[in-house]
Parts: sequence; C-alpha cells; structure tokens
Amino acid sequence: MPAAPRPFDDVSAVHPCGEGEYAATVDAQWGVSNKPNGGYLLAMLGRAAVAGAGHEHVVTASAHYLHSPDAGAVTIETTVLRKGRSADHVRATLRQDGQACVEAVFMIGHLDEATSPYWDAGAAGRPSGDRDAAVRVPSTSPTGMRVPLMDQIDLRLDPSCLGFAVGSPSGSGELRGWLELLDGAPFDTTALLFAVDALPPATMEVRPTGWVPTLEMTAYVRALPVPGPLTILHRAGLVEAERVDETTTVWDSAGRLVAQATQLAGIRLG
Amino acid sequence: MPAAPRPFDDVSAVHPCGEGEYAATVDAQWGVSNKPNGGYLLAMLGRAAVAGAGHEHVVTASAHYLHSPDAGAVTIETTVLRKGRSADHVRATLRQDGQACVEAVFMIGHLDEATSPYWDAGAAGRPSGDRDAAVRVPSTSPTGMRVPLMDQIDLRLDPSCLGFAVGSPSGSGELRGWLELLDGAPFDTTALLFAVDALPPATMEVRPTGWVPTLEMTAYVRALPVPGPLTILHRAGLVEAERVDETTTVWDSAGRLVAQATQLAGIRLG
Repeated sequence: MPAAPRPFDDVSAVHPCGEGEYAATVDAQWGVSNKPNGGYLLAMLGRAAVAGAGHEHVVTASAHYLHSPDAGAVTIETTVLRKGRSADHVRATLRQDGQACVEAVFMIGHLDEATSPYWDAGAAGRPSGDRDAAVRVPSTSPTGMRVPLMDQIDLRLDPSCLGFAVGSPSGSGELRGWLELLDGAPFDTTALLFAVDALPPATMEVRPTGWVPTLEMTAYVRALPVPGPLTILHRAGLVEAERVDETTTVWDSAGRLVAQATQLAGIRLG
Repeated sequence: MPAAPRPFDDVSAVHPCGEGEYAATVDAQWGVSNKPNGGYLLAMLGRAAVAGAGHEHVVTASAHYLHSPDAGAVTIETTVLRKGRSADHVRATLRQDGQACVEAVFMIGHLDEATSPYWDAGAAGRPSGDRDAAVRVPSTSPTGMRVPLMDQIDLRLDPSCLGFAVGSPSGSGELRGWLELLDGAPFDTTALLFAVDALPPATMEVRPTGWVPTLEMTAYVRALPVPGPLTILHRAGLVEAERVDETTTVWDSAGRLVAQATQLAGIRLG
C-alpha cells in the first residue's frame, strides 16, 4: 500500500537550530528506491538559503551532489557569500552524520509578477499536448524499480512519450509532462527547484536503465508561476562515457516560462 | 596599440601559497573594458581546484559571480568537499582584498581519450560554416566598448551572424565562431572553461547592448579535445526582466562535442 501523501511544504521544511544552521528531515517517500530525489533536496537547501537572506525568491541555484543521504535527519549549514541591494548570494551545505551530501550556491533576489518576455528564442517549445489525455506515472518503473515519489505527486506524461513503459522507447530522449502537488499547493520558487527534477530520466525514451543519479544541477527561476499544474519538457542531450546531460524547461498553467535547468547525471550507458 | 598577447597558461596560472591556498594575478587584457572575462576567472579557479585534487580533469564546474575583481592580485581558497575513487569535489573561492568575487564548485575526475558518443540528440547542431571565411572579432565592440580580450585570442565569427556589427542584428540570438589561443596551445579541460565564455553575448544578434555580466555559469566537459581550433555555438534563450540565459556548445577540430555550458547574465533589456 502506498504511503499516505505528505505536503511538499512539510517534507521540505527547515528549522533554525543555530546561527545559519537548520535541521530538516529527508522523507523516505520523496525519491527513487531509497535515494531521495535531487530536486527535493535542492528545494530543502533553497528554503534554508531564503530563510537566511534579505530577499525572498530563488533566482539561481547550482548544486553538486556528493553523497546520497538516507531518509532521516540532516543539517543544513548556510553561509552568506554576499549581501546586495537587489540580491544576496548564499551557500548551503546539507550534511548527514557529519558527511557532506549536497552543496549548492543560490542567488536570492526578487522576481516581479508584472514582467513579460522581451525576446524568446523559443528553442524549447512548450508541449502542446492535452493534460487530460496524459497518463499518471506509476510508482514502479519499467525496469522494476520502486519510485515511491510518484505516489506523493501528480505527475502525468504525454502518451506520445510513453514508449519506454511498453518496451519500445521512441528514441527521442524527450519526456513531456504535467506536475501538480497532491495538496494542490501552488509552486513557489523553492518548489520549482523540485519541479525541474521531478520527471523520470529523459533517457527512458532512449533506453530504460536503473537509477540515473544527478551529479550537478543548475536551475534558473525566470518568473513567478500562477497556481495550477506546471508543464515540463525534459530532454536528454549527449550520452557518453556513462554520463548524460539533460535540460528541463518549465511553464506555468498560463503558458509562461518560469524555470530552466540543466543537469549532468551518471548512467549505465555509453 | 594593443597589448602584446600573453599565453593563456601564464595569465591563468595559480601559485600555491598555503594549505589549499593559491595566489594568482588577473590580467588587465583578458576581459571587456576593465572587467575580466568570467570564463577566464573560472579557468583560474579550475586550475586551483585541479591542483588540490587527486584527479586531473575538470568534469563539471558551477560558478556564481559575486563581484567583478579588478586586474591585479587575487587569492584562491580551495576546500575539498569529497574525495572519491573516480572523482573529487572541490570548492574554490576567488577573493580580492578580502572580498569574495567568484565561488565555484568543481567535480574533478578522469576523461578517457577513447570514449565515443553512445547517443546524441543533436539539439545543438555543429555549425557547418567555413573558418577561413570567418571574420576575426575586433577589440572594439559595435557599441563602442573596448574588448581588449580580442587582441589576446583568435576568435572568428561566421559572417552570417555579424549583422550586429553593421547595425542590423539578424534577430536569431545566435553566434557561431572558432577559437584558437594565439600561441597555438591546445585546450585542456581548464582552458575549455574559458572557451565556453569567450564569445560576445549571443544577444548581440538580438540587440547590441553594453556589458552583459555573467551571474551564474555552469560548464560540463564531455571529452578531451584534440589540438586545433574549437568550434563554438552560443545561443540566447529568454530575455526577461533584465536577465538572459545563454547556452554554449563547443566542438573540437575533429567535430567531437567537448564542452557544454549554460549561463544567466544581466542585461539592460526587458
């Protein structure tokens, strides 16, 4: 029986426990097998970074993943690298039992609701599919791996990129989906850090494999999303020497580009 | 009269001056106006990170730019975040007069010469233009800004993306070029960190502006380049709220994809 869903705000909460220090708990369900999702951990770090900053929105985040923590207690140490009028820069390090697990640097600034694109190359075209016709991702992957995260969120994929689920990946290396939190909570700029890493590896539509651990991930938040499901495009780039780069673009329910991310991950291919 | 070119190896050199500490000198010529190039600074940090690691190649680098240093003396403090069998993770912070200017985290590992792509989406198609027909970028920009860097390197742009130089940007937001170091030195993995930021802003082909300062830049080195000029594709994504994202792809002279980067920069548009 799947674990009862817990709100994202709860599982990513951080609690001050010293000067620039926060305590948090990695939830056992927010990941793949027993490995917590990288975007979930980055969101947790982002909440600690915002808590210690003089501004409110994550604008950039770049993270290196050093060691996958187990579910349970972690600490987050934050250091303000620079305080500015328009943005602060904050380093945050997540540790478990003294071991560094994730280190990220954030630019925390202010995003205005009233902005609009000046110019857009449109290189990552927003998927035009129909969310009502999309298929919710189950919590067991085609390779038999348990993905408890999928019982905690409402993630749906376009049927045209579900070849991997029936043993026939399209070869496109591209997944298109829609993401909602189960409690219907809107996505703030820290929840967007989870959203950019919520889809299965885009390489599922090249060749399904086991765990594809994120090594480095960088996200840019470009606008504040309106409430409603996010549309997400997740694309693999080059698979070589057991590494793959993936790019992710996120739009809000009004069609506005709100976040972009790139990651390098390990993979047992190439 | 332009300053005599200095080899990249010299201007990016770092000298041990304590436990995990390095001294370096920011060259006045390697930048735009009096601002040093962000990729040049990242390469300097990368050399310090490699010096303190048990492996030899930069695989990933993610940097936040906090404050632009002046030409002159800087120090680089490195901290090994994790030592591993296949890779080390190293944080490096560049300071001038005690002020933090750039902080970056690196994954330092080993890239094998014998690898080849397993799968490639080909999303960033390698420019097919002719380097012999390309135009060397001069050290004065169309907006009248001095770019002394261009006297220090051999950077040539495809004539089809030079509209900006004659007041008629194509609107593509894309630059395609070829880069060589003037002393003909091959690009190692740290020099590639400079290469990903060597081109003018891709927004020149949207609308020429003044300085476009890098806020965050992340680079992945995917393979070791063979000697010879690099081919570089530099594309703008979304310009909004005085920020722009740019993606850069670099191929070696044999046509192999060797590096990828993304950056968020400030711009006086939107």
